[in-house]
Amino acid sequence: MKKNGLNIEQMVQTVDAIKNTPSLGEFEFRASNQWINGGENRSTIQGFYGAGSEDESRSEPFTFTNGEPPILLGNNEGANPVEFLLHALAGCVTTTTVLHATARGIQINKISTELVGNIDVNGLLALDDTVPVGYESITIKMDIEADCSDEELDELLSFAKDHSPVCNTVCRPVPVTLERVRQLKAVAPFSNKIPSLPKWSLTTDW
Amino acid sequence: MKKNGLNIEQMVQTVDAIKNTPSLGEFEFRASNQWINGGENRSTIQGFYGAGSEDESRSEPFTFTNGEPPILLGNNEGANPVEFLLHALAGCVTTTTVLHATARGIQINKISTELVGNIDVNGLLALDDTVPVGYESITIKMDIEADCSDEELDELLSFAKDHSPVCNTVCRPVPVTLERVRQLKAVAPFSNKIPSLPKWSLTTDW
Repeated sequence: MKKNGLNIEQMVQTVDAIKNTPSLGEFEFRASNQWINGGENRSTIQGFYGAGSEDESRSEPFTFTNGEPPILLGNNEGANPVEFLLHALAGCVTTTTVLHATARGIQINKISTELVGNIDVNGLLALDDTVPVGYESITIKMDIEADCSDEELDELLSFAKDHSPVCNTVCRPVPVTLERVRQLKAVAPFSNKIPSLPKWSLTTDW
Repeated sequence: MKKNGLNIEQMVQTVDAIKNTPSLGEFEFRASNQWINGGENRSTIQGFYGAGSEDESRSEPFTFTNGEPPILLGNNEGANPVEFLLHALAGCVTTTTVLHATARGIQINKISTELVGNIDVNGLLALDDTVPVGYESITIKMDIEADCSDEELDELLSFAKDHSPVCNTVCRPVPVTLERVRQLKAVAPFSNKIPSLPKWSLTTDW
Protein backbone atom coordinates (compact mmCIF):
# COMPACT_ATOMS: atom_id res chain seq x y z
CA MET A 1 0.00 0.00 0.00
CA LYS A 2 1.28 3.42 -0.98
CA LYS A 3 0.56 6.87 0.40
CA ASN A 4 2.04 10.00 -1.13
CA GLY A 5 4.00 7.69 -3.44
CA LEU A 6 5.76 5.98 -0.51
CA ASN A 7 5.41 2.27 0.19
CA ILE A 8 3.98 2.14 3.71
CA GLU A 9 5.09 -1.43 4.49
CA GLN A 10 8.66 -0.73 3.36
CA MET A 11 8.71 2.51 5.35
CA VAL A 12 7.57 0.76 8.53
CA GLN A 13 10.10 -2.08 8.00
CA THR A 14 12.95 0.42 7.44
CA VAL A 15 12.09 2.46 10.53
CA ASP A 16 11.70 -0.69 12.65
CA ALA A 17 15.05 -2.06 11.45
CA ILE A 18 16.82 1.20 12.37
CA LYS A 19 15.01 1.33 15.72
CA ASN A 20 16.30 -2.17 16.49
CA THR A 21 19.82 -1.56 15.14
CA PRO A 22 20.52 2.19 15.21
CA SER A 23 23.86 1.80 13.38
CA LEU A 24 21.85 0.92 10.23
CA GLY A 25 21.03 4.63 10.11
CA GLU A 26 24.63 5.59 9.29
CA PHE A 27 25.04 6.68 5.67
CA GLU A 28 28.06 7.89 3.70
CA PHE A 29 27.31 9.87 0.53
CA ARG A 30 29.94 10.73 -2.10
CA ALA A 31 30.64 12.85 -5.14
CA SER A 32 33.61 13.04 -7.53
CA ASN A 33 34.23 16.27 -9.39
CA GLN A 34 36.51 17.21 -12.29
CA TRP A 35 37.43 20.77 -13.23
CA ILE A 36 36.88 21.40 -16.94
CA ASN A 37 37.77 25.08 -17.48
CA GLY A 38 37.01 28.44 -15.87
CA GLY A 39 33.82 28.11 -13.83
CA GLU A 40 32.84 24.79 -15.45
CA ASN A 41 33.22 21.48 -13.63
CA ARG A 42 31.36 18.19 -13.54
CA SER A 43 30.35 15.83 -10.74
CA THR A 44 29.76 12.09 -10.90
CA ILE A 45 27.55 10.53 -8.23
CA GLN A 46 26.77 6.84 -7.98
CA GLY A 47 27.64 4.70 -4.98
CA PHE A 48 26.99 5.28 -1.30
CA TYR A 49 27.09 3.30 1.91
CA GLY A 50 23.99 2.94 4.03
CA ALA A 51 21.83 0.57 6.05
CA GLY A 52 24.87 -1.60 6.73
CA SER A 53 26.10 -2.16 3.19
CA GLU A 54 27.35 -0.60 -0.02
CA ASP A 55 24.44 0.38 -2.27
CA GLU A 56 24.42 -1.34 -5.67
CA SER A 57 21.11 -0.03 -6.99
CA ARG A 58 22.49 2.41 -9.58
CA SER A 59 23.83 0.81 -12.73
CA GLU A 60 24.79 4.21 -14.19
CA PRO A 61 26.20 7.28 -12.45
CA PHE A 62 24.42 10.62 -12.32
CA THR A 63 26.44 13.51 -13.77
CA PHE A 64 25.84 17.21 -13.16
CA THR A 65 27.63 20.24 -14.59
CA ASN A 66 28.32 23.40 -12.64
CA GLY A 67 28.73 26.54 -14.71
CA GLU A 68 28.51 30.29 -14.26
CA PRO A 69 26.55 32.99 -16.09
CA PRO A 70 28.46 35.59 -18.16
CA ILE A 71 28.24 38.22 -15.39
CA LEU A 72 30.21 35.73 -13.24
CA LEU A 73 32.73 35.03 -16.02
CA GLY A 74 31.13 31.87 -17.45
CA ASN A 75 28.96 30.75 -20.36
CA ASN A 76 25.97 29.23 -18.53
CA GLU A 77 27.47 25.76 -18.91
CA GLY A 78 25.13 24.74 -16.08
CA ALA A 79 23.46 26.23 -13.04
CA ASN A 80 26.04 27.56 -10.63
CA PRO A 81 26.97 25.93 -7.31
CA VAL A 82 24.95 28.29 -5.10
CA GLU A 83 21.89 27.59 -7.29
CA PHE A 84 22.44 23.82 -6.99
CA LEU A 85 22.45 24.33 -3.23
CA LEU A 86 18.95 25.87 -3.46
CA HIS A 87 17.82 22.85 -5.53
CA ALA A 88 19.17 20.51 -2.84
CA LEU A 89 17.46 22.49 -0.08
CA ALA A 90 14.11 22.63 -1.91
CA GLY A 91 14.18 18.89 -2.53
CA CYS A 92 15.15 17.96 0.99
CA VAL A 93 12.52 20.07 2.71
CA THR A 94 9.89 18.71 0.30
CA THR A 95 10.86 15.06 0.75
CA THR A 96 11.11 15.41 4.53
CA THR A 97 7.62 16.95 4.57
CA VAL A 98 6.23 14.07 2.46
CA LEU A 99 7.94 11.47 4.66
CA HIS A 100 6.62 12.80 7.96
CA ALA A 101 3.17 13.54 6.48
CA THR A 102 2.99 9.88 5.45
CA ALA A 103 4.08 8.78 8.92
CA ARG A 104 1.16 10.80 10.33
CA GLY A 105 -1.35 9.48 7.79
CA ILE A 106 -1.69 12.85 6.07
CA GLN A 107 -2.40 12.80 2.31
CA ILE A 108 -0.47 15.49 0.43
CA ASN A 109 -2.16 16.83 -2.69
CA LYS A 110 0.41 19.41 -3.77
CA ILE A 111 3.71 20.94 -2.70
CA SER A 112 5.54 23.64 -4.57
CA THR A 113 8.29 25.86 -3.24
CA GLU A 114 9.97 29.09 -4.29
CA LEU A 115 13.44 29.68 -2.84
CA VAL A 116 15.35 32.94 -2.70
CA GLY A 117 18.87 33.31 -1.33
CA ASN A 118 20.99 36.44 -0.99
CA ILE A 119 24.74 36.52 -1.44
CA ASP A 120 27.08 39.49 -1.54
CA VAL A 121 30.03 38.53 -3.77
CA ASN A 122 32.23 41.07 -1.97
CA GLY A 123 32.82 38.08 0.32
CA LEU A 124 33.80 35.65 -2.44
CA LEU A 125 36.07 38.27 -4.02
CA ALA A 126 37.69 39.08 -0.66
CA LEU A 127 36.89 42.78 -1.15
CA ASP A 128 35.20 43.22 2.23
CA ASP A 129 35.91 40.85 5.10
CA THR A 130 32.91 42.11 7.08
CA VAL A 131 30.54 40.59 4.48
CA PRO A 132 29.42 36.94 4.97
CA VAL A 133 30.99 34.73 2.30
CA GLY A 134 28.05 32.30 2.11
CA TYR A 135 24.36 32.97 1.75
CA GLU A 136 23.24 35.73 4.12
CA SER A 137 19.81 34.10 4.37
CA ILE A 138 17.54 31.79 2.42
CA THR A 139 13.74 31.99 2.32
CA ILE A 140 11.52 29.09 1.27
CA LYS A 141 7.91 29.88 0.40
CA MET A 142 5.90 26.67 0.30
CA ASP A 143 2.45 26.20 -1.19
CA ILE A 144 1.04 22.97 0.25
CA GLU A 145 -2.37 21.34 0.05
CA ALA A 146 -3.19 18.34 2.24
CA ASP A 147 -6.14 16.60 3.89
CA CYS A 148 -5.56 18.01 7.36
CA SER A 149 -6.19 21.15 9.37
CA ASP A 150 -4.15 24.32 9.08
CA GLU A 151 -2.80 23.70 12.57
CA GLU A 152 -1.65 20.17 11.67
CA LEU A 153 -0.04 21.52 8.52
CA ASP A 154 1.81 24.26 10.42
CA GLU A 155 3.09 21.68 12.92
CA LEU A 156 4.10 19.29 10.10
CA LEU A 157 6.11 22.00 8.32
CA SER A 158 7.87 23.10 11.48
CA PHE A 159 8.77 19.46 12.19
CA ALA A 160 9.95 18.89 8.59
CA LYS A 161 12.22 21.95 8.71
CA ASP A 162 13.75 20.71 11.95
CA HIS A 163 14.35 17.22 10.47
CA SER A 164 15.53 18.05 6.93
CA PRO A 165 19.20 17.02 6.52
CA VAL A 166 20.04 19.70 3.93
CA CYS A 167 18.20 22.42 5.86
CA ASN A 168 20.13 21.47 9.00
CA THR A 169 23.42 21.35 7.07
CA VAL A 170 22.72 24.96 6.02
CA CYS A 171 21.24 26.44 9.19
CA ARG A 172 23.70 24.78 11.58
CA PRO A 173 27.50 24.76 11.28
CA VAL A 174 28.87 21.56 9.68
CA PRO A 175 32.64 21.00 9.66
CA VAL A 176 34.17 20.83 6.18
CA THR A 177 37.74 19.59 5.80
CA LEU A 178 39.74 20.28 2.65
CA GLU A 179 42.71 17.95 2.26
CA ARG A 180 45.21 18.25 -0.53
CA VAL A 181 46.29 14.92 -1.96
CA ARG A 182 49.33 14.40 -4.11
CA GLN A 183 50.76 11.49 -5.97
CA LEU A 184 54.08 10.54 -4.52
CA LYS A 185 56.76 11.13 -7.07
CA ALA A 186 58.12 7.67 -7.83
CA VAL A 187 61.78 7.18 -7.01
CA ALA A 188 63.87 4.42 -8.54
CA PRO A 189 63.15 1.42 -6.34
CA PHE A 190 66.04 -0.52 -4.84
CA SER A 191 64.00 -3.67 -5.19
CA ASN A 192 61.01 -4.63 -7.26
CA LYS A 193 59.56 -6.17 -4.11
CA ILE A 194 58.54 -2.75 -2.80
CA PRO A 195 54.76 -2.78 -2.66
CA SER A 196 53.00 -0.54 -5.15
CA LEU A 197 52.50 3.01 -3.92
CA PRO A 198 49.01 4.00 -2.83
CA LYS A 199 47.36 6.35 -5.32
CA TRP A 200 46.95 9.09 -2.71
CA SER A 201 49.87 9.26 -0.34
CA LEU A 202 50.34 12.67 1.22
CA THR A 203 47.64 14.77 2.74
CA THR A 204 47.74 18.24 4.17
CA ASP A 205 45.25 19.05 6.88
CA TRP A 206 44.15 22.63 7.30
CA MET B 1 43.43 37.20 -22.74
CA LYS B 2 42.34 34.13 -20.82
CA LYS B 3 43.94 32.26 -17.95
CA ASN B 4 42.43 29.08 -16.54
CA GLY B 5 39.51 29.67 -18.90
CA LEU B 6 38.68 33.04 -17.32
CA ASN B 7 38.76 36.29 -19.29
CA ILE B 8 41.31 38.40 -17.41
CA GLU B 9 40.10 41.78 -18.72
CA GLN B 10 36.49 40.99 -17.82
CA MET B 11 37.56 39.76 -14.38
CA VAL B 12 39.49 42.97 -13.66
CA GLN B 13 36.60 45.11 -14.90
CA THR B 14 34.10 43.23 -12.73
CA VAL B 15 36.24 43.48 -9.62
CA ASP B 16 36.93 47.19 -10.24
CA ALA B 17 33.23 47.91 -10.76
CA ILE B 18 32.33 46.21 -7.45
CA LYS B 19 35.21 47.96 -5.67
CA ASN B 20 33.83 51.31 -6.86
CA THR B 21 30.17 50.44 -6.18
CA PRO B 22 30.03 47.70 -3.55
CA SER B 23 26.25 47.28 -3.88
CA LEU B 24 26.89 45.74 -7.33
CA GLY B 25 28.08 42.68 -5.39
CA GLU B 26 24.60 41.91 -4.09
CA PHE B 27 23.07 38.86 -5.80
CA GLU B 28 19.73 37.10 -5.34
CA PHE B 29 19.58 33.50 -6.59
CA ARG B 30 16.33 31.54 -6.95
CA ALA B 31 14.88 28.08 -7.50
CA SER B 32 11.31 26.84 -7.99
CA ASN B 33 10.51 23.26 -7.06
CA GLN B 34 7.49 21.02 -7.68
CA TRP B 35 6.77 17.82 -5.79
CA ILE B 36 6.06 14.95 -8.18
CA ASN B 37 5.51 11.89 -5.93
CA GLY B 38 7.22 10.19 -3.00
CA GLY B 39 10.85 11.33 -2.90
CA GLU B 40 10.77 12.75 -6.44
CA ASN B 41 10.61 16.48 -7.10
CA ARG B 42 11.95 18.83 -9.76
CA SER B 43 13.57 22.26 -9.64
CA THR B 44 13.58 24.96 -12.29
CA ILE B 45 16.37 27.54 -12.18
CA GLN B 46 16.69 30.44 -14.60
CA GLY B 47 16.67 34.08 -13.55
CA PHE B 48 18.64 35.84 -10.83
CA TYR B 49 19.42 39.39 -9.81
CA GLY B 50 23.01 40.57 -9.65
CA ALA B 51 25.39 43.39 -10.50
CA GLY B 52 22.53 45.87 -10.30
CA SER B 53 20.07 44.26 -12.69
CA GLU B 54 17.99 41.21 -13.51
CA ASP B 55 20.03 38.67 -15.49
CA GLU B 56 18.64 37.88 -18.93
CA SER B 57 21.41 35.61 -20.20
CA ARG B 58 19.53 32.31 -19.99
CA SER B 59 16.97 31.72 -22.72
CA GLU B 60 16.01 28.33 -21.26
CA PRO B 61 15.71 27.23 -17.63
CA PHE B 62 17.84 24.51 -16.07
CA THR B 63 15.82 21.65 -14.57
CA PHE B 64 17.08 19.10 -12.04
CA THR B 65 15.31 16.11 -10.52
CA ASN B 66 15.76 14.99 -6.94
CA GLY B 67 15.08 11.32 -6.26
CA GLU B 68 15.91 8.69 -3.68
CA PRO B 69 17.43 5.22 -3.97
CA PRO B 70 15.26 2.17 -3.10
CA ILE B 71 16.79 1.85 0.38
CA LEU B 72 15.42 5.37 1.01
CA LEU B 73 12.00 4.50 -0.46
CA GLY B 74 12.57 5.82 -4.00
CA ASN B 75 13.40 4.58 -7.50
CA ASN B 76 16.63 6.50 -8.22
CA GLU B 77 14.66 9.14 -10.12
CA GLY B 78 17.69 11.39 -9.62
CA ALA B 79 20.50 11.93 -7.15
CA ASN B 80 19.12 12.74 -3.74
CA PRO B 81 19.21 16.20 -2.12
CA VAL B 82 22.18 15.51 0.18
CA GLU B 83 24.15 14.28 -2.86
CA PHE B 84 23.26 17.44 -4.81
CA LEU B 85 24.64 19.40 -1.86
CA LEU B 86 28.00 17.61 -2.30
CA HIS B 87 27.93 18.50 -6.02
CA ALA B 88 27.33 22.16 -5.13
CA LEU B 89 30.14 22.13 -2.58
CA ALA B 90 32.63 20.45 -4.94
CA GLY B 91 31.87 22.94 -7.69
CA CYS B 92 32.07 25.99 -5.47
CA VAL B 93 35.40 25.10 -3.87
CA THR B 94 36.80 24.29 -7.34
CA THR B 95 35.58 27.51 -8.96
CA THR B 96 36.73 29.64 -6.02
CA THR B 97 40.17 28.01 -6.26
CA VAL B 98 40.35 28.73 -10.01
CA LEU B 99 39.20 32.34 -9.51
CA HIS B 100 41.75 33.19 -6.85
CA ALA B 101 44.53 31.26 -8.62
CA THR B 102 43.85 33.40 -11.69
CA ALA B 103 43.93 36.57 -9.59
CA ARG B 104 47.40 35.51 -8.37
CA GLY B 105 48.65 34.62 -11.84
CA ILE B 106 48.81 30.89 -11.05
CA GLN B 107 48.14 28.50 -13.94
CA ILE B 108 46.03 25.51 -12.89
CA ASN B 109 46.67 22.30 -14.82
CA LYS B 110 44.24 19.98 -13.06
CA ILE B 111 41.76 19.91 -10.20
CA SER B 112 39.76 16.89 -9.17
CA THR B 113 37.96 16.37 -5.89
CA GLU B 114 36.45 13.45 -4.01
CA LEU B 115 33.82 14.34 -1.40
CA VAL B 116 32.54 12.17 1.40
CA GLY B 117 29.81 13.20 3.82
CA ASN B 118 28.37 11.28 6.76
CA ILE B 119 24.74 11.42 7.83
CA ASP B 120 22.91 9.38 10.42
CA VAL B 121 19.26 9.12 9.31
CA ASN B 122 18.20 8.56 12.91
CA GLY B 123 18.07 12.38 12.86
CA LEU B 124 15.85 12.65 9.75
CA LEU B 125 13.54 9.93 11.10
CA ALA B 126 13.33 11.62 14.52
CA LEU B 127 14.37 8.36 16.20
CA ASP B 128 17.19 9.93 18.23
CA ASP B 129 17.24 13.63 19.00
CA THR B 130 20.88 13.52 20.11
CA VAL B 131 21.97 12.76 16.51
CA PRO B 132 22.69 15.72 14.20
CA VAL B 133 20.02 15.96 11.50
CA GLY B 134 22.37 17.33 8.83
CA TYR B 135 25.76 16.10 7.68
CA GLU B 136 27.96 15.31 10.66
CA SER B 137 31.03 16.29 8.62
CA ILE B 138 32.16 16.55 5.02
CA THR B 139 35.67 15.84 3.74
CA ILE B 140 36.98 17.11 0.41
CA LYS B 141 40.12 15.48 -0.97
CA MET B 142 41.53 17.66 -3.74
CA ASP B 143 44.14 16.64 -6.30
CA ILE B 144 45.53 19.84 -7.81
CA GLU B 145 48.42 20.54 -10.16
CA ALA B 146 49.56 24.10 -10.80
CA ASP B 147 52.66 26.07 -11.78
CA CYS B 148 53.52 27.24 -8.28
CA SER B 149 55.22 25.99 -5.14
CA ASP B 150 53.64 23.64 -2.64
CA GLU B 151 53.53 26.48 -0.12
CA GLU B 152 51.68 28.78 -2.55
CA LEU B 153 49.25 25.97 -3.33
CA ASP B 154 48.55 25.30 0.35
CA GLU B 155 47.92 29.00 0.93
CA LEU B 156 45.68 29.21 -2.16
CA LEU B 157 43.53 26.29 -1.01
CA SER B 158 43.16 27.64 2.51
CA PHE B 159 42.11 30.99 1.03
CA ALA B 160 39.68 29.34 -1.42
CA LYS B 161 38.03 27.34 1.37
CA ASP B 162 37.58 30.54 3.39
CA HIS B 163 36.06 32.37 0.38
CA SER B 164 33.81 29.69 -1.15
CA PRO B 165 30.14 30.69 -0.79
CA VAL B 166 28.79 27.11 -0.62
CA CYS B 167 31.53 26.00 1.78
CA ASN B 168 30.72 28.93 4.06
CA THR B 169 26.98 28.25 3.78
CA VAL B 170 27.73 24.73 5.07
CA CYS B 171 30.40 25.37 7.68
CA ARG B 172 28.75 28.47 9.18
CA PRO B 173 25.12 28.78 10.29
CA VAL B 174 22.88 30.43 7.66
CA PRO B 175 19.31 31.34 8.61
CA VAL B 176 16.65 29.48 6.62
CA THR B 177 13.04 30.65 6.83
CA LEU B 178 10.17 28.41 5.76
CA GLU B 179 6.96 30.33 5.09
CA ARG B 180 3.70 28.70 4.21
CA VAL B 181 1.78 30.51 1.51
CA ARG B 182 -1.84 29.98 0.67
CA GLN B 183 -4.12 31.24 -2.02
CA LEU B 184 -6.81 33.39 -0.54
CA LYS B 185 -10.15 31.79 -1.18
CA ALA B 186 -11.90 34.20 -3.51
CA VAL B 187 -15.07 35.72 -2.12
CA ALA B 188 -17.75 37.19 -4.32
CA PRO B 189 -16.61 40.75 -4.96
CA PHE B 190 -19.00 43.62 -4.24
CA SER B 191 -17.47 45.49 -7.14
CA ASN B 192 -15.48 44.53 -10.16
CA LYS B 193 -13.16 47.44 -9.33
CA ILE B 194 -11.52 45.44 -6.55
CA PRO B 195 -7.94 44.91 -7.64
CA SER B 196 -6.99 41.33 -8.45
CA LEU B 197 -5.81 39.36 -5.46
CA PRO B 198 -2.10 38.75 -5.18
CA LYS B 199 -1.19 35.13 -5.95
CA TRP B 200 0.33 34.61 -2.51
CA SER B 201 -1.55 36.43 0.17
CA LEU B 202 -1.08 34.86 3.60
CA THR B 203 2.21 33.85 5.07
CA THR B 204 3.00 32.04 8.27
CA ASP B 205 6.34 32.77 9.84
CA TRP B 206 7.94 30.11 11.97
